[in-house]
Amino acid sequence: MYLPPHFQELNPDIISQIVATAPLACIVAQTSEGLVANHIPVLAKGRDTLIGHVALANDMHRLMADGPPVLAIFRGDHGYVSPNYYPTKALHHRHVPTWNYQVVHMHGTISFQHDTRSKRAVVGLLTRHHEQGLNGDAAWRMADAPADYMAQMLDNIVAFQITVTRILAKSKLSQNREPIDGQGAADGVRASGQVALAEHMVQRLADKREG
Amino acid sequence: MYLPPHFQELNPDIISQIVATAPLACIVAQTSEGLVANHIPVLAKGRDTLIGHVALANDMHRLMADGPPVLAIFRGDHGYVSPNYYPTKALHHRHVPTWNYQVVHMHGTISFQHDTRSKRAVVGLLTRHHEQGLNGDAAWRMADAPADYMAQMLDNIVAFQITVTRILAKSKLSQNREPIDGQGAADGVRASGQVALAEHMVQRLADKREG
Repeated sequence: MYLPPHFQELNPDIISQIVATAPLACIVAQTSEGLVANHIPVLAKGRDTLIGHVALANDMHRLMADGPPVLAIFRGDHGYVSPNYYPTKALHHRHVPTWNYQVVHMHGTISFQHDTRSKRAVVGLLTRHHEQGLNGDAAWRMADAPADYMAQMLDNIVAFQITVTRILAKSKLSQNREPIDGQGAADGVRASGQVALAEHMVQRLADKREG
Repeated sequence: MYLPPHFQELNPDIISQIVATAPLACIVAQTSEGLVANHIPVLAKGRDTLIGHVALANDMHRLMADGPPVLAIFRGDHGYVSPNYYPTKALHHRHVPTWNYQVVHMHGTISFQHDTRSKRAVVGLLTRHHEQGLNGDAAWRMADAPADYMAQMLDNIVAFQITVTRILAKSKLSQNREPIDGQGAADGVRASGQVALAEHMVQRLADKREG
Protein backbone atom coordinates (compact mmCIF):
# COMPACT_ATOMS: atom_id res chain seq x y z
CA MET A 1 0.00 0.00 0.00
CA TYR A 2 1.19 3.50 -0.83
CA LEU A 3 1.91 4.98 2.57
CA PRO A 4 3.45 8.46 2.69
CA PRO A 5 4.75 9.20 6.21
CA HIS A 6 2.11 11.85 6.93
CA PHE A 7 -0.69 9.30 6.40
CA GLN A 8 0.93 6.39 8.19
CA GLU A 9 -1.12 5.31 11.21
CA LEU A 10 1.21 4.24 13.99
CA ASN A 11 -1.10 4.53 17.00
CA PRO A 12 -1.95 0.95 18.06
CA ASP A 13 -5.15 2.11 19.76
CA ILE A 14 -6.42 3.69 16.56
CA ILE A 15 -5.42 0.62 14.55
CA SER A 16 -7.39 -1.54 17.01
CA GLN A 17 -10.32 0.86 16.76
CA ILE A 18 -10.41 0.64 12.93
CA VAL A 19 -10.39 -3.16 13.15
CA ALA A 20 -13.06 -3.18 15.87
CA THR A 21 -15.42 -0.84 14.02
CA ALA A 22 -14.91 -2.50 10.62
CA PRO A 23 -14.56 -6.17 11.57
CA LEU A 24 -15.77 -7.51 8.21
CA ALA A 25 -12.28 -8.24 6.91
CA CYS A 26 -11.56 -8.84 3.27
CA ILE A 27 -9.15 -11.78 3.32
CA VAL A 28 -7.12 -12.18 0.15
CA ALA A 29 -4.62 -14.79 -1.00
CA GLN A 30 -2.98 -15.87 -4.21
CA THR A 31 -4.13 -19.47 -4.80
CA SER A 32 -4.02 -22.12 -7.51
CA GLU A 33 -7.21 -20.50 -8.80
CA GLY A 34 -5.75 -16.99 -8.83
CA LEU A 35 -6.56 -14.19 -6.44
CA VAL A 36 -9.30 -15.22 -4.03
CA ALA A 37 -10.97 -12.79 -1.63
CA ASN A 38 -13.66 -13.43 0.97
CA HIS A 39 -15.44 -11.05 3.31
CA ILE A 40 -15.46 -12.48 6.80
CA PRO A 41 -16.07 -10.99 10.24
CA VAL A 42 -12.95 -11.57 12.31
CA LEU A 43 -11.87 -10.80 15.83
CA ALA A 44 -8.42 -9.65 16.93
CA LYS A 45 -6.96 -11.76 19.72
CA GLY A 46 -4.09 -9.75 21.09
CA ARG A 47 -1.96 -7.76 18.66
CA ASP A 48 -0.86 -10.52 16.30
CA THR A 49 -3.72 -12.97 15.86
CA LEU A 50 -7.02 -12.82 14.01
CA ILE A 51 -9.66 -15.51 14.38
CA GLY A 52 -12.81 -16.33 12.45
CA HIS A 53 -14.66 -19.07 10.63
CA VAL A 54 -15.93 -19.84 7.15
CA ALA A 55 -18.58 -22.15 5.76
CA LEU A 56 -17.40 -25.68 5.08
CA ALA A 57 -18.80 -25.09 1.58
CA ASN A 58 -16.43 -22.11 1.14
CA ASP A 59 -13.56 -23.31 -1.05
CA MET A 60 -11.25 -20.88 0.71
CA HIS A 61 -10.16 -23.44 3.31
CA ARG A 62 -9.29 -25.93 0.59
CA LEU A 63 -7.51 -23.41 -1.66
CA MET A 64 -5.55 -22.06 1.32
CA ALA A 65 -5.06 -25.37 3.15
CA ASP A 66 -1.28 -25.17 2.90
CA GLY A 67 -1.21 -21.91 4.85
CA PRO A 68 -0.29 -19.32 2.22
CA PRO A 69 0.46 -15.67 2.92
CA VAL A 70 -2.80 -13.78 3.30
CA LEU A 71 -3.74 -10.15 3.53
CA ALA A 72 -6.62 -9.15 5.81
CA ILE A 73 -7.97 -5.73 4.87
CA PHE A 74 -10.05 -3.68 7.29
CA ARG A 75 -11.55 -0.60 5.78
CA GLY A 76 -13.02 2.06 8.02
CA ASP A 77 -14.98 5.12 7.01
CA HIS A 78 -14.25 6.83 3.71
CA GLY A 79 -15.51 9.69 1.61
CA TYR A 80 -14.88 12.07 -1.26
CA VAL A 81 -13.21 15.42 -0.56
CA SER A 82 -14.10 18.18 -3.01
CA PRO A 83 -11.68 21.08 -3.64
CA ASN A 84 -14.71 23.27 -2.87
CA TYR A 85 -14.37 22.28 0.79
CA TYR A 86 -11.08 24.15 1.26
CA PRO A 87 -11.48 27.82 2.26
CA THR A 88 -8.10 28.65 0.70
CA LYS A 89 -9.41 27.49 -2.69
CA ALA A 90 -10.88 30.96 -3.19
CA LEU A 91 -7.42 32.47 -2.68
CA HIS A 92 -5.24 30.41 -5.01
CA HIS A 93 -7.29 27.57 -6.55
CA ARG A 94 -4.37 25.21 -6.04
CA HIS A 95 -6.39 22.18 -4.94
CA VAL A 96 -7.59 18.96 -6.53
CA PRO A 97 -10.16 16.35 -5.41
CA THR A 98 -9.14 13.45 -3.19
CA TRP A 99 -10.58 10.63 -1.13
CA ASN A 100 -10.15 10.25 2.64
CA TYR A 101 -10.22 6.90 4.41
CA GLN A 102 -8.81 4.77 7.20
CA VAL A 103 -7.58 1.29 6.43
CA VAL A 104 -5.57 -1.44 8.12
CA HIS A 105 -3.70 -4.14 6.20
CA MET A 106 -2.61 -7.16 8.21
CA HIS A 107 -0.25 -9.49 6.40
CA GLY A 108 0.27 -12.97 7.80
CA THR A 109 -0.31 -16.66 7.31
CA ILE A 110 -3.55 -18.55 7.74
CA SER A 111 -4.27 -21.94 9.27
CA PHE A 112 -7.57 -23.79 9.54
CA GLN A 113 -8.98 -25.79 12.42
CA HIS A 114 -11.51 -28.54 11.85
CA ASP A 115 -11.94 -29.81 15.40
CA THR A 116 -15.17 -29.03 17.24
CA ARG A 117 -13.43 -27.53 20.26
CA SER A 118 -11.64 -24.89 18.15
CA LYS A 119 -14.77 -24.13 16.16
CA ARG A 120 -16.91 -23.77 19.26
CA ALA A 121 -14.30 -21.47 20.84
CA VAL A 122 -14.16 -19.15 17.80
CA VAL A 123 -17.93 -18.97 17.44
CA GLY A 124 -18.27 -18.33 21.17
CA LEU A 125 -15.75 -15.47 21.16
CA LEU A 126 -17.18 -13.81 18.04
CA THR A 127 -20.74 -14.15 19.30
CA ARG A 128 -19.96 -12.76 22.73
CA HIS A 129 -18.08 -9.83 21.21
CA HIS A 130 -20.84 -8.77 18.84
CA GLU A 131 -23.85 -9.65 20.96
CA GLN A 132 -22.69 -8.01 24.16
CA GLY A 133 -21.76 -4.86 22.27
CA LEU A 134 -25.14 -4.72 20.56
CA ASN A 135 -27.62 -6.28 22.95
CA GLY A 136 -25.98 -6.12 26.39
CA ASP A 137 -27.96 -8.19 28.87
CA ALA A 138 -30.26 -9.38 26.07
CA ALA A 139 -27.27 -10.79 24.16
CA TRP A 140 -27.98 -13.95 22.19
CA ARG A 141 -25.93 -16.86 23.46
CA MET A 142 -24.99 -20.10 21.72
CA ALA A 143 -26.75 -21.90 24.58
CA ASP A 144 -30.03 -20.25 23.47
CA ALA A 145 -30.09 -22.55 20.44
CA PRO A 146 -30.95 -26.28 20.70
CA ALA A 147 -27.85 -28.47 21.07
CA ASP A 148 -28.60 -30.51 17.93
CA TYR A 149 -28.91 -27.32 15.88
CA MET A 150 -25.64 -25.85 17.17
CA ALA A 151 -23.85 -29.17 16.55
CA GLN A 152 -25.12 -29.11 12.97
CA MET A 153 -24.03 -25.45 12.56
CA LEU A 154 -20.54 -26.29 13.89
CA ASP A 155 -20.32 -29.27 11.51
CA ASN A 156 -20.84 -26.84 8.64
CA ILE A 157 -18.01 -24.42 9.42
CA VAL A 158 -14.21 -24.39 9.60
CA ALA A 159 -12.33 -22.17 12.05
CA PHE A 160 -9.24 -20.22 11.05
CA GLN A 161 -6.46 -18.28 12.63
CA ILE A 162 -4.24 -15.68 10.98
CA THR A 163 -0.83 -15.09 12.51
CA VAL A 164 -0.07 -11.48 11.71
CA THR A 165 3.52 -10.69 10.74
CA ARG A 166 3.18 -7.15 9.38
CA ILE A 167 0.68 -4.34 9.83
CA LEU A 168 0.33 -1.37 7.51
CA ALA A 169 -2.22 1.21 8.57
CA LYS A 170 -3.24 4.44 6.90
CA SER A 171 -5.28 7.36 8.17
CA LYS A 172 -5.85 9.71 5.26
CA LEU A 173 -7.72 12.46 7.06
CA SER A 174 -6.56 15.76 5.48
CA GLN A 175 -3.95 16.11 8.24
CA ASN A 176 -1.47 17.27 5.58
CA ARG A 177 -3.55 20.40 4.92
CA GLU A 178 -3.41 23.82 6.50
CA PRO A 179 -5.66 23.73 9.59
CA ILE A 180 -8.30 25.99 8.00
CA ASP A 181 -8.55 23.62 5.02
CA GLY A 182 -8.57 20.54 7.25
CA GLN A 183 -11.52 22.01 9.12
CA GLY A 184 -13.26 22.93 5.87
CA ALA A 185 -12.74 19.42 4.54
CA ALA A 186 -14.23 17.94 7.74
CA ASP A 187 -17.24 20.27 7.45
CA GLY A 188 -17.75 19.31 3.82
CA VAL A 189 -17.42 15.60 4.47
CA ARG A 190 -19.94 15.91 7.30
CA ALA A 191 -22.38 17.82 5.08
CA SER A 192 -22.03 15.10 2.43
CA GLY A 193 -23.29 12.58 5.00
CA GLN A 194 -20.00 10.96 6.06
CA VAL A 195 -20.40 11.92 9.71
CA ALA A 196 -18.12 9.26 11.23
CA LEU A 197 -15.30 10.14 8.83
CA ALA A 198 -15.75 13.84 9.68
CA GLU A 199 -15.39 13.01 13.39
CA HIS A 200 -12.10 11.22 12.74
CA MET A 201 -10.87 14.21 10.71
CA VAL A 202 -11.79 16.69 13.47
CA GLN A 203 -10.11 14.51 16.09
CA ARG A 204 -6.95 14.32 13.99
CA LEU A 205 -6.92 18.11 13.59
CA ALA A 206 -7.21 18.49 17.37
CA ASP A 207 -4.40 15.96 17.96
CA LYS A 208 -2.20 17.90 15.54
CA ARG A 209 -2.90 21.23 17.30
CA GLU A 210 -1.99 19.71 20.64
CA GLY A 211 0.93 17.65 19.38
CA MET B 1 -15.37 -15.67 -3.23
CA TYR B 2 -17.84 -18.07 -1.67
CA LEU B 3 -20.99 -17.45 -3.66
CA PRO B 4 -24.00 -19.66 -2.93
CA PRO B 5 -26.62 -19.28 -5.70
CA HIS B 6 -29.13 -17.50 -3.43
CA PHE B 7 -26.62 -14.71 -2.73
CA GLN B 8 -25.26 -14.35 -6.24
CA GLU B 9 -25.98 -10.88 -7.66
CA LEU B 10 -26.73 -11.19 -11.35
CA ASN B 11 -28.58 -7.91 -11.95
CA PRO B 12 -26.16 -5.66 -13.92
CA ASP B 13 -27.96 -2.52 -12.73
CA ILE B 14 -27.44 -3.46 -9.08
CA ILE B 15 -23.81 -4.38 -9.77
CA SER B 16 -23.32 -0.95 -11.37
CA GLN B 17 -25.06 0.67 -8.41
CA ILE B 18 -22.74 -1.02 -5.88
CA VAL B 19 -19.71 0.16 -7.87
CA ALA B 20 -21.12 3.68 -8.22
CA THR B 21 -21.94 4.09 -4.53
CA ALA B 22 -18.67 2.50 -3.31
CA PRO B 23 -16.18 3.72 -5.91
CA LEU B 24 -13.16 3.50 -3.60
CA ALA B 25 -11.95 0.19 -5.03
CA CYS B 26 -9.44 -1.99 -3.26
CA ILE B 27 -7.13 -3.11 -6.05
CA VAL B 28 -5.08 -6.20 -5.22
CA ALA B 29 -2.38 -8.07 -7.10
CA GLN B 30 0.26 -10.67 -6.37
CA THR B 31 3.61 -8.96 -7.05
CA SER B 32 7.31 -9.58 -6.56
CA GLU B 33 6.80 -8.02 -3.13
CA GLY B 34 3.86 -10.26 -2.22
CA LEU B 35 0.24 -9.25 -2.05
CA VAL B 36 -0.17 -5.52 -2.65
CA ALA B 37 -3.45 -3.69 -2.16
CA ASN B 38 -4.29 -0.04 -2.73
CA HIS B 39 -7.50 1.89 -2.16
CA ILE B 40 -8.26 3.99 -5.21
CA PRO B 41 -11.39 5.72 -6.48
CA VAL B 42 -12.19 4.30 -9.91
CA LEU B 43 -14.82 4.87 -12.52
CA ALA B 44 -16.51 2.20 -14.63
CA LYS B 45 -16.37 2.95 -18.35
CA GLY B 46 -18.92 0.65 -19.91
CA ARG B 47 -19.29 -2.85 -18.51
CA ASP B 48 -15.72 -4.10 -18.84
CA THR B 49 -13.33 -1.24 -18.14
CA LEU B 50 -12.31 0.56 -14.96
CA ILE B 51 -10.19 3.71 -15.03
CA GLY B 52 -8.33 5.62 -12.36
CA HIS B 53 -4.96 7.06 -11.41
CA VAL B 54 -2.33 6.67 -8.72
CA ALA B 55 0.43 8.86 -7.41
CA LEU B 56 3.71 8.57 -9.30
CA ALA B 57 5.22 7.86 -5.86
CA ASN B 58 2.91 4.85 -5.45
CA ASP B 59 5.03 1.75 -6.16
CA MET B 60 1.95 -0.01 -7.47
CA HIS B 61 2.58 1.08 -11.06
CA ARG B 62 6.14 -0.23 -10.92
CA LEU B 63 5.24 -3.52 -9.17
CA MET B 64 2.38 -4.10 -11.64
CA ALA B 65 4.10 -2.65 -14.73
CA ASP B 66 3.93 -5.97 -16.58
CA GLY B 67 0.13 -6.01 -16.37
CA PRO B 68 -0.56 -8.79 -13.88
CA PRO B 69 -4.02 -10.14 -13.03
CA VAL B 70 -5.68 -7.81 -10.54
CA LEU B 71 -8.79 -7.96 -8.42
CA ALA B 72 -10.79 -4.76 -7.88
CA ILE B 73 -13.04 -5.08 -4.85
CA PHE B 74 -16.01 -2.78 -4.34
CA ARG B 75 -17.67 -3.15 -1.00
CA GLY B 76 -21.07 -1.64 -0.43
CA ASP B 77 -22.96 -1.37 2.84
CA HIS B 78 -22.57 -4.05 5.48
CA GLY B 79 -23.72 -4.84 8.98
CA TYR B 80 -24.11 -7.43 11.71
CA VAL B 81 -27.34 -9.43 11.91
CA SER B 82 -28.23 -10.66 15.39
CA PRO B 83 -30.36 -13.80 15.86
CA ASN B 84 -32.50 -11.56 18.09
CA TYR B 85 -33.72 -9.77 14.95
CA TYR B 86 -35.66 -12.82 13.70
CA PRO B 87 -39.25 -13.06 15.00
CA THR B 88 -39.18 -16.85 14.58
CA LYS B 89 -36.30 -17.07 17.02
CA ALA B 90 -38.82 -17.08 19.87
CA LEU B 91 -40.49 -20.14 18.32
CA HIS B 92 -37.56 -22.46 17.68
CA HIS B 93 -34.27 -20.69 18.50
CA ARG B 94 -32.71 -22.19 15.38
CA HIS B 95 -30.75 -19.12 14.30
CA VAL B 96 -27.14 -17.97 14.50
CA PRO B 97 -25.51 -14.55 13.94
CA THR B 98 -24.39 -13.50 10.49
CA TRP B 99 -23.17 -10.50 8.53
CA ASN B 100 -24.95 -8.94 5.55
CA TYR B 101 -23.18 -7.08 2.78
CA GLN B 102 -23.01 -6.29 -0.90
CA VAL B 103 -19.75 -6.67 -2.74
CA VAL B 104 -18.50 -6.75 -6.33
CA HIS B 105 -15.26 -8.44 -7.36
CA MET B 106 -13.92 -7.51 -10.78
CA HIS B 107 -11.06 -9.66 -12.00
CA GLY B 108 -9.00 -8.43 -14.91
CA THR B 109 -5.64 -7.11 -16.03
CA ILE B 110 -4.19 -3.67 -15.41
CA SER B 111 -2.21 -1.38 -17.67
CA PHE B 112 -0.70 2.02 -16.89
CA GLN B 113 -0.61 5.15 -19.04
CA HIS B 114 2.08 7.76 -18.55
CA ASP B 115 1.17 10.19 -21.32
CA THR B 116 -0.38 13.53 -20.39
CA ARG B 117 -3.37 13.11 -22.68
CA SER B 118 -4.45 9.84 -20.97
CA LYS B 119 -3.86 11.27 -17.52
CA ARG B 120 -5.82 14.43 -18.25
CA ALA B 121 -8.69 12.36 -19.67
CA VAL B 122 -8.93 10.13 -16.59
CA VAL B 123 -8.73 13.02 -14.14
CA GLY B 124 -11.35 14.90 -16.15
CA LEU B 125 -13.79 11.99 -16.18
CA LEU B 126 -13.38 11.20 -12.48
CA THR B 127 -13.66 14.85 -11.51
CA ARG B 128 -16.75 15.45 -13.60
CA HIS B 129 -18.41 12.32 -12.22
CA HIS B 130 -17.87 13.18 -8.56
CA GLU B 131 -18.20 16.94 -8.73
CA GLN B 132 -21.39 17.05 -10.77
CA GLY B 133 -22.98 14.45 -8.49
CA LEU B 134 -22.02 16.38 -5.37
CA ASN B 135 -21.97 20.04 -6.35
CA GLY B 136 -24.09 20.31 -9.50
CA ASP B 137 -23.68 23.73 -11.08
CA ALA B 138 -21.04 24.63 -8.47
CA ALA B 139 -18.92 21.65 -9.53
CA TRP B 140 -15.19 22.18 -9.30
CA ARG B 141 -13.54 21.94 -12.72
CA MET B 142 -9.93 21.25 -13.62
CA ALA B 143 -9.96 24.60 -15.44
CA ASP B 144 -10.59 26.32 -12.07
CA ALA B 145 -7.00 25.58 -11.08
CA PRO B 146 -4.02 27.47 -12.57
CA ALA B 147 -2.55 25.70 -15.62
CA ASP B 148 0.95 25.41 -14.07
CA TYR B 149 -0.53 23.78 -10.97
CA MET B 150 -2.60 21.26 -12.96
CA ALA B 151 0.42 20.42 -15.13
CA GLN B 152 2.42 19.74 -11.98
CA MET B 153 -0.40 17.59 -10.56
CA LEU B 154 -0.59 15.58 -13.79
CA ASP B 155 3.20 15.11 -13.74
CA ASN B 156 2.82 13.46 -10.35
CA ILE B 157 0.27 10.79 -11.30
CA VAL B 158 0.00 7.73 -13.51
CA ALA B 159 -3.28 6.70 -15.16
CA PHE B 160 -4.43 3.10 -15.29
CA GLN B 161 -7.04 1.00 -16.97
CA ILE B 162 -8.35 -2.38 -15.85
CA THR B 163 -9.82 -4.64 -18.51
CA VAL B 164 -12.39 -6.68 -16.65
CA THR B 165 -12.62 -10.36 -17.62
CA ARG B 166 -14.79 -11.75 -14.82
CA ILE B 167 -17.27 -10.27 -12.37
CA LEU B 168 -18.42 -11.94 -9.17
CA ALA B 169 -21.07 -10.07 -7.22
CA LYS B 170 -22.78 -10.95 -3.98
CA SER B 171 -25.83 -9.48 -2.29
CA LYS B 172 -26.13 -11.09 1.12
CA LEU B 173 -29.34 -9.45 2.28
CA SER B 174 -31.24 -12.13 4.28
CA GLN B 175 -33.16 -13.05 1.12
CA ASN B 176 -32.72 -16.72 2.10
CA ARG B 177 -34.88 -16.21 5.21
CA GLU B 178 -38.60 -16.55 5.72
CA PRO B 179 -40.17 -13.17 4.84
CA ILE B 180 -41.04 -12.39 8.47
CA ASP B 181 -37.41 -12.95 9.49
CA GLY B 182 -36.12 -10.99 6.51
CA GLN B 183 -38.26 -8.06 7.59
CA GLY B 184 -37.15 -8.44 11.22
CA ALA B 185 -33.52 -8.50 10.12
CA ALA B 186 -34.02 -5.30 8.09
CA ASP B 187 -35.69 -3.61 11.08
CA GLY B 188 -32.82 -4.68 13.36
CA VAL B 189 -30.14 -3.57 10.95
CA ARG B 190 -31.88 -0.20 10.59
CA ALA B 191 -32.13 0.20 14.38
CA SER B 192 -28.41 -0.58 14.68
CA GLY B 193 -27.71 2.41 12.41
CA GLN B 194 -27.08 0.66 9.08
CA VAL B 195 -29.90 2.47 7.31
CA ALA B 196 -28.63 2.08 3.73
CA LEU B 197 -28.12 -1.67 4.20
CA ALA B 198 -31.64 -1.95 5.66
CA GLU B 199 -33.05 -0.22 2.56
CA HIS B 200 -31.33 -2.75 0.30
CA MET B 201 -32.72 -5.61 2.41
CA VAL B 202 -36.27 -4.22 2.25
CA GLN B 203 -35.99 -3.73 -1.51
CA ARG B 204 -34.78 -7.30 -1.97
CA LEU B 205 -37.70 -8.60 0.12
CA ALA B 206 -40.12 -6.65 -2.09
CA ASP B 207 -38.45 -7.97 -5.26
CA LYS B 208 -38.80 -11.52 -3.91
CA ARG B 209 -42.50 -11.03 -3.12
CA GLU B 210 -43.13 -9.75 -6.63
CA GLY B 211 -40.83 -12.14 -8.42
